[in-house]
Amino acid sequence: MSKNLTKRAEDYSKWYNELVVKADLAENSGVRGSMVIKPYGFAIWEKMQAELDRKFKATGHVNAYFPLFIPKSYFSKEASHVDGFAKECAVVTHYRLKNADDGSGIIVDEEARLEEELIVRPTSETIIWDTYRNWIQSYRDLPILINQWANVVRWEMRTRLFLRTAEFLWQEGHTAHATRQEAEEETRMILDLYADFAEGFMAMPVIKGVKTESERFAGALDTYCIEALMQDGKALQAGTSHFLGQNFAKAFDVKYATREGKEEYVWATSWGVSTRLMGALIMTHSDDNGLVLPPKLAPFQVVIVPIYRGEDELEEINIKVSEIKQSLEQAGISVKYDNRDTHKPGWKFNEYELKGVPLRIAIGPRDLKNNSVELARRDTLQKEVVSMDGLIAKVLDELEQIQTNLYKKALDFREANMYPVDSWDEFLEVIEKKGGFAVAHWDGTAETEERIKQETKATIRCIPLKGEKEEGKCIRTGKPSTGRVIFAKAY
Amino acid sequence: MSKNLTKRAEDYSKWYNELVVKADLAENSGVRGSMVIKPYGFAIWEKMQAELDRKFKATGHVNAYFPLFIPKSYFSKEASHVDGFAKECAVVTHYRLKNADDGSGIIVDEEARLEEELIVRPTSETIIWDTYRNWIQSYRDLPILINQWANVVRWEMRTRLFLRTAEFLWQEGHTAHATRQEAEEETRMILDLYADFAEGFMAMPVIKGVKTESERFAGALDTYCIEALMQDGKALQAGTSHFLGQNFAKAFDVKYATREGKEEYVWATSWGVSTRLMGALIMTHSDDNGLVLPPKLAPFQVVIVPIYRGEDELEEINIKVSEIKQSLEQAGISVKYDNRDTHKPGWKFNEYELKGVPLRIAIGPRDLKNNSVELARRDTLQKEVVSMDGLIAKVLDELEQIQTNLYKKALDFREANMYPVDSWDEFLEVIEKKGGFAVAHWDGTAETEERIKQETKATIRCIPLKGEKEEGKCIRTGKPSTGRVIFAKAY
Repeated sequence: MSKNLTKRAEDYSKWYNELVVKADLAENSGVRGSMVIKPYGFAIWEKMQAELDRKFKATGHVNAYFPLFIPKSYFSKEASHVDGFAKECAVVTHYRLKNADDGSGIIVDEEARLEEELIVRPTSETIIWDTYRNWIQSYRDLPILINQWANVVRWEMRTRLFLRTAEFLWQEGHTAHATRQEAEEETRMILDLYADFAEGFMAMPVIKGVKTESERFAGALDTYCIEALMQDGKALQAGTSHFLGQNFAKAFDVKYATREGKEEYVWATSWGVSTRLMGALIMTHSDDNGLVLPPKLAPFQVVIVPIYRGEDELEEINIKVSEIKQSLEQAGISVKYDNRDTHKPGWKFNEYELKGVPLRIAIGPRDLKNNSVELARRDTLQKEVVSMDGLIAKVLDELEQIQTNLYKKALDFREANMYPVDSWDEFLEVIEKKGGFAVAHWDGTAETEERIKQETKATIRCIPLKGEKEEGKCIRTGKPSTGRVIFAKAY
Repeated sequence: MSKNLTKRAEDYSKWYNELVVKADLAENSGVRGSMVIKPYGFAIWEKMQAELDRKFKATGHVNAYFPLFIPKSYFSKEASHVDGFAKECAVVTHYRLKNADDGSGIIVDEEARLEEELIVRPTSETIIWDTYRNWIQSYRDLPILINQWANVVRWEMRTRLFLRTAEFLWQEGHTAHATRQEAEEETRMILDLYADFAEGFMAMPVIKGVKTESERFAGALDTYCIEALMQDGKALQAGTSHFLGQNFAKAFDVKYATREGKEEYVWATSWGVSTRLMGALIMTHSDDNGLVLPPKLAPFQVVIVPIYRGEDELEEINIKVSEIKQSLEQAGISVKYDNRDTHKPGWKFNEYELKGVPLRIAIGPRDLKNNSVELARRDTLQKEVVSMDGLIAKVLDELEQIQTNLYKKALDFREANMYPVDSWDEFLEVIEKKGGFAVAHWDGTAETEERIKQETKATIRCIPLKGEKEEGKCIRTGKPSTGRVIFAKAY
């Protein structure tokens, strides 16, 4: 039964675009660059949100909501921020439409022009720090540990579902601290939180690191990141955590009285992950048969399909399945029973394979007689006939194994595609032929970084936190280097 | 200890505005008409969201996400919809800013003008039905039961925190059905769901009814609503559920093949509640001492305040409280222990009264000796010294009583302010002096409805579903009427 899905080896990019649509995750809308996230895709995003939200709250953060619109002048207050964000954005200039005099439809009412244009938020540092000014007077008001779940807009010329869209959903944390040390600790704590989420829930191994100056967030002193490797050998930045120093406090005049009565600027962090994680999830695990989901993020972990001829057989199966379903649900497993008579079992097998449901249970009249079911794993595509006795324990065990196996498989892939290189030729071999992470010495200058980018399209994904101090020579210039960094082509 | 809160009897509107800010629920932002929802306010909204989301999912709905921007032309497709929504809205006309040539800052880049303006969604029927066209071919694709949690923008000239803001948060359900009957059933099922939520969770009694033609949603055949009565005698529309007929299906050409192979237009509903519910919650229960929250929506249901002198006493109390807190939390009660040494007990009592925490437990050295605590109820302001033995059961019982009591109190108030009136003088007496719901006969014409509105500012809140068929004469024109409707001034 064909899914008409392009194979990864044929055209990875096409495979991805098709899969997102065919698995009912998202599709393009009538609005250029904006996607519709479909219910099945959104259910996965909701699982991500729930776990991240739990983690944020467990570490003392609270949620709040700040305006969608930001006055243009706010962006000009932080010099590097305006260059990074205020340029490609959606600008609201008017607040009214009217009927055209010539009856041709509705047009913008030029009399309803805003005095100051409003920018649809590309990120909320400016509006939030403008607000924090009124919230912070003394050290007693600190820290402020706030997160916001929101939509943001960045006007992208070339868009791809989940990976790069004009509007996307994300969370953005914005914290305010009395000391530099506390803010830096927060930045790294969140980095660890993101890494734990990526590895523990998405089963996606990541490398924790810090960005070079040229790849930093506009307005940050340090940008930490988690970088993942996709199956096609390209890197994907999966989350960032920024130490903002006192830049925004100075730009928005946010000071506090210390315990000793002195006045000081507040220290800041910001951090975020977005619906881009959906793209990362898809490209880490899925295969030529469709989506593969780790059990912890699957909208339903088990699908049960009845195999039957005629109403009588189906009724018998229905009774048995309702027992099984209840027991599975009591054990905390999410289950879908698809006994629609409008589709054949083969069609359903295909459909749930495409949608990445971790485990499939098929049950027919012979199974009823033998007290068995057929269990099929999505990750390995292996089938097994198992007894109904002890089925719950078996399912729990399989789900755990799938979660572990997916992580291990992705980790093995990454390890196999991480190349320490010591010459320019080796570097080119990795970047242009093999794909993957080239772990190489670099002389530490933005010029060399830019030169390599121009020549190969590879960028420095990060300076890994775990990297050992190791003397060496820059891969491109031969100048001295104090440690290896990670290069790759990236999404 | 004064909270500097205006009294309701003095100036209800001022009381409301002050309370929203002082109780840390929300505040105005630097963006005209847009509010910042502060963490404490947002925590209440999250509780509303969680329960509504649970109810939507329990009735078969799923979440999805549609674009923030809607092309201008989409609005013109449904004739009455465009008049209702496309006029006062935020219009995106450009997608880029640039540095001004004269160095004066950043300006709109006129070269980056959009070919077609984008409207920031005031509601999403048009973009969603444009999408549904591709999702629906056959009766097998129906029903579609989708909800979206989103921000929307309506350009309001006079705004008030939560009640009327340019940007607000809401959920909007958009369902598609094969038959008229099914769509109408959905519309009323959601109305019941909203009413259950309002009464069961917000402890806010509501009247279920249907809107007159002139108060209908732009594009609907029927608009059902729940109407609540605020303490100042004004009505507040707390939620609406619209039967849209085939209007949007026709506007966006959404047809399906029936089981019999015929082609028909799809039937639609849409329904929503918003952060306006926060305003309703505040104005239903709160008093001159501050916010009063029903336990089911309180961010924390119990606050524990230690009364102590010196570190030693505090340490002893800390040990005891940590036991109590754990037991309460195991019983599913949310608890905050405020042992900050920066504020005195009196200050804390005041603060948590202002914030509407349902139950306060105070505990001092004498309590430790007597195996007792002081329990104070926010709704009645009654205090009681109770034994620590059986404290958990006592707290659970009190929380339940508070929830019930708040509902009963609000219901009594509404019943006492619901006036059947049979003459124009009686009507004026209610609308202009007493305040409340005037339950009166009306001749069924839009002209009379408009005339009454012009003369008194009272509108028909709804034709109550529970209303008995009763012959009568219109309060204004003396013409025949078939039943009473509910008039009031409204938020």
